[in-house]
Amino acid sequence: MSLLYTLDLIGTAAFAASGALAGIRRRMDLFGVLVLGLVTAIGGGTLRDLLLGDNPPFCFRNEGYLYLSLGVALLTFVLHRHLGGFRQPLLFFDAIGLGTFVVIGTEKALHFKLGFLGAVLMGVVTATAGGIMRDVLANQIPLILRKEIYASACLAGAALLALFIRFGVARSPALLVAAVTVSALRLFAIHFNWALPRARD
Amino acid sequence: MSLLYTLDLIGTAAFAASGALAGIRRRMDLFGVLVLGLVTAIGGGTLRDLLLGDNPPFCFRNEGYLYLSLGVALLTFVLHRHLGGFRQPLLFFDAIGLGTFVVIGTEKALHFKLGFLGAVLMGVVTATAGGIMRDVLANQIPLILRKEIYASACLAGAALLALFIRFGVARSPALLVAAVTVSALRLFAIHFNWALPRARD
Amino acid sequence: MSLLYTLDLIGTAAFAASGALAGIRRRMDLFGVLVLGLVTAIGGGTLRDLLLGDNPPFCFRNEGYLYLSLGVALLTFVLHRHLGGFRQPLLFFDAIGLGTFVVIGTEKALHFKLGFLGAVLMGVVTATAGGIMRDVLANQIPLILRKEIYASACLAGAALLALFIRFGVARSPALLVAAVTVSALRLFAIHFNWALPRARD
Repeated sequence: MSLLYTLDLIGTAAFAASGALAGIRRRMDLFGVLVLGLVTAIGGGTLRDLLLGDNPPFCFRNEGYLYLSLGVALLTFVLHRHLGGFRQPLLFFDAIGLGTFVVIGTEKALHFKLGFLGAVLMGVVTATAGGIMRDVLANQIPLILRKEIYASACLAGAALLALFIRFGVARSPALLVAAVTVSALRLFAIHFNWALPRARD
Repeated sequence: MSLLYTLDLIGTAAFAASGALAGIRRRMDLFGVLVLGLVTAIGGGTLRDLLLGDNPPFCFRNEGYLYLSLGVALLTFVLHRHLGGFRQPLLFFDAIGLGTFVVIGTEKALHFKLGFLGAVLMGVVTATAGGIMRDVLANQIPLILRKEIYASACLAGAALLALFIRFGVARSPALLVAAVTVSALRLFAIHFNWALPRARD
Repeated sequence: MSLLYTLDLIGTAAFAASGALAGIRRRMDLFGVLVLGLVTAIGGGTLRDLLLGDNPPFCFRNEGYLYLSLGVALLTFVLHRHLGGFRQPLLFFDAIGLGTFVVIGTEKALHFKLGFLGAVLMGVVTATAGGIMRDVLANQIPLILRKEIYASACLAGAALLALFIRFGVARSPALLVAAVTVSALRLFAIHFNWALPRARD
């Protein structure tokens, strides 16, 4: 099992847990919590595959993603009152997932012959669309559109990877540096409370 | 015209009426009511076909679904003040639609070579995604994520059908038993006010 | 560069500006404003291409649409306090975009062998789905579903074009008359404050 696939599974599990917690906070029932966990974990990659025309989407060809997401969401539902100590590690694994999803999405889009900007956007979509769907289903303005550096970190990493590949950098270091950039920016942003500017009134 | 197709049309009409009523309750204009009726009736099957890569979706190959949905939504708009007596029958036809959509979606997904869990989820998507879209457009947390046994009935019926097919049960009884299971669970849930557990605080 | 393509770019820019303004009003950060601008400008055509199975969608094959939308959204973000005098022209360009998107979508759907009602709906989807996505992301009931003649103008123009094509009217006048019908209805509706009926209580 490659390192990238391992990181992909870690990120999927972290995203599923964050989606399930959002459902629990909104007082959804078991089914709602499972749906929010699943959609958060696989929504971004599924939308990417729909846009690329790669049917059926990845998680229906490797159902491991479905079992993992639903399993983690179920565990989160059952154990959520005992998960207080997992908040910090969850942010860490979430950042790992973010970096991994960005490089997987950008690389796949380039493989499907998209241009520079299209591939960068596909990396961002892969990493962020699941969280946006989670917030839409929970009837909230997506967090990512309001006050986090979250998406900018994805944008930076995706652009870096697309540039690396255009200039012939070897695949492994290119993926690694781009993914670490995203994860590190995300963790720094949480730690130092960075934010993007808003339009002035 | 087969029994399955007849039930499919009944379910489509019932879903269109429920979508139109949601639009009327939210004080939408005629166009909004038509959109909500249409999206509720065909949204689930359309999303399923997008995910399966079966383009264009079913309702664009057989426009009867479009005419039926828009026609029912229009009738509901015009006559809604005289429909008080139809509330009970509507719940009944809605339950029939639920069972029919589940078995159609699950069987189609298996035909497209999806695995067990993927096919079960496609059955659930076919039956529930239209209602979720309706609630998102009406700016509400989807009802189904909060407090109904609705989706669990779909899950049970889809799993039953996938198991029947895996173990070689003949098609007609398999479809019938699975669809009746969904519809009956749904009607029992309404009658006895069943609900799924929520996470405890 | 054809007239239709020129109008298409004008409409794309106007839609991107309206999306960016919606994001600014909802106090989103820079990333949110860019997403809302992009989604409003390309969301309709992208959904149409997904439904038609034409992958990847138009804006990933001609990235000019992506650069234009993001550039306009960025400019709107930076300059929005100095754009007071552009409100009226923006409504005008928005109406031009509406007419153009309707005829492009309807014609493309007929080219993909959709039937009459399917093609008309695709024209409406092309012109209105981006705005609906904008409102869903901004956590509001889509404006178009509540109180504007907006969508009805699209419906009328799309039906007109589909009829013209069915009865063999030459392409250029057919497109022109249909597009002008949509834009003019939209501008009249704003000017005279027309509205569709709502269901009575």
